[in-house]
Amino acid sequence: MSAQQRMEQELVDRVVGSFENCGNERLKQVMQSLTQHLHGFIRDVRLTEDEWNAAIAFLTAAGQITDDKRQEFVLLSDVLGASMQVIAVNNESYKDATEATVFGPFFVEDAPEISHGGDIAGDAAGQPCWVEGTVRDTDGNPVPGARIEVWEADEDGLYDVQYLDKRVAGRAHLYADDQGQYAFWGLTPTPYPIPNDGPVGRLLDSVGRSPVRASHLHFMVTAPGLRTLITHIFVEGDPQLEIGDSVFGVKDSLIKKFEVQEAEAPTPDGRDVGSTGWARTRFDVVLAPASV
Amino acid sequence: MSAQQRMEQELVDRVVGSFENCGNERLKQVMQSLTQHLHGFIRDVRLTEDEWNAAIAFLTAAGQITDDKRQEFVLLSDVLGASMQVIAVNNESYKDATEATVFGPFFVEDAPEISHGGDIAGDAAGQPCWVEGTVRDTDGNPVPGARIEVWEADEDGLYDVQYLDKRVAGRAHLYADDQGQYAFWGLTPTPYPIPNDGPVGRLLDSVGRSPVRASHLHFMVTAPGLRTLITHIFVEGDPQLEIGDSVFGVKDSLIKKFEVQEAEAPTPDGRDVGSTGWARTRFDVVLAPASV
Repeated sequence: MSAQQRMEQELVDRVVGSFENCGNERLKQVMQSLTQHLHGFIRDVRLTEDEWNAAIAFLTAAGQITDDKRQEFVLLSDVLGASMQVIAVNNESYKDATEATVFGPFFVEDAPEISHGGDIAGDAAGQPCWVEGTVRDTDGNPVPGARIEVWEADEDGLYDVQYLDKRVAGRAHLYADDQGQYAFWGLTPTPYPIPNDGPVGRLLDSVGRSPVRASHLHFMVTAPGLRTLITHIFVEGDPQLEIGDSVFGVKDSLIKKFEVQEAEAPTPDGRDVGSTGWARTRFDVVLAPASV
Repeated sequence: MSAQQRMEQELVDRVVGSFENCGNERLKQVMQSLTQHLHGFIRDVRLTEDEWNAAIAFLTAAGQITDDKRQEFVLLSDVLGASMQVIAVNNESYKDATEATVFGPFFVEDAPEISHGGDIAGDAAGQPCWVEGTVRDTDGNPVPGARIEVWEADEDGLYDVQYLDKRVAGRAHLYADDQGQYAFWGLTPTPYPIPNDGPVGRLLDSVGRSPVRASHLHFMVTAPGLRTLITHIFVEGDPQLEIGDSVFGVKDSLIKKFEVQEAEAPTPDGRDVGSTGWARTRFDVVLAPASV
């Protein structure tokens, strides 16, 4: 080890040692590991002072654009795959439990409740899509009353929170029925870019990456005693699946067939969807026990 | 490797691969290394979703408190020793060149010029301190005309940019004379906490660390053809040197004797410093070649 390497390592050891008196063992572990990895990064790439300045400026710009509706740090975590890695370590695969994926920044608490077969779209534009499925546990038992939150972008790629007014659209919650079944009208998902007019968008541009997310529909399914599932379903055949989802959210098991129907085809609940045509898909959810 | 480990590693590989088309080779290297270390951290500590949320909230709060005068991200980098590590990798030790330390968030461009023996204090309160030395290169040659920026906190631990008005105090620049010598009146440095009313301060509190910086006086010395030196000098005997400098800036070679003088002792330039007493110190600067 050269004198230079020794000096660098001594600094790492000093910073790690500074957390030694932390009374919270878990916090100590997290901060000491963060220190090791952060210093490892700086030393491995021999980060220049200009690059350090650029990093500070990047974080500052991310802070400035972040507000109640825009969360640039979540986007940053997403495009670095960090969000997806957190999902991975916290949702270890268990039997046939449905796989989780990223939460994203567009969930809103207290979305309106709809009944079985209700419509989540509100006035959001897009092709009507009938979504149905069953919620079961990993023993195959239905989960009556499971709470299902669903949210999605409209056909222009915008979530309601990105609208200029405050109307609610493209989101709702409902409950599985006595047989664990659910169904609702949503919109056939379309691809859209993550908000890319900020520092994260400029970063993606600099590295030649697409900001576009593969078409998807968000789900969060909760039930007492079972592990909360946060996931999406993706649209089979979406070209963005090949280009690459900008936040690394895709898992093969979550890609579903969306069957486009003729406008004249009768809808499952007799609803008249007009002349636009409609689609249907099925997503059966399997929840792991809360204890795994 | 378990199925779980394989899934986690595949995600890392996918994110690393997403930078493969980056046209800027250096940026590609930096982003791929950042990805490896960030994911390594998340996997090593098995970061929970609550902890990830806390991290996002921390960065958001840091962004909110950051403005023209307050730079929480620099403070964060400082208390994690990252700033000091960047200094270390960019200022490899070279012969007897003076060691560098952290820049800190309080430097301001265009500080007033003073002449040899001038006073940087303005109306900042504190014990007058005569600081003198010579600027040389590593061959021992004086460096006439070297530009010396100096800045420091007042006896209450505040830099001028932390004052509520906009007056300039405790900072100036001057030039070494024909023999490479410089001298000025400053203030004997005192310990002070880094700004600790924000998320970084709360972090230090949570882990049981002192926010206090060892007493110091900042220098930045520049001259054509020589490596810019950003450093401090520290005060021998300061108890905070034992407790630990909150930003890991201390190096033994930078600890200087500050000799306190009786009020009646004649000053080097005949200045009447009143009845407060004064101190003196010496800091000889050696600049490495720019090319190392």
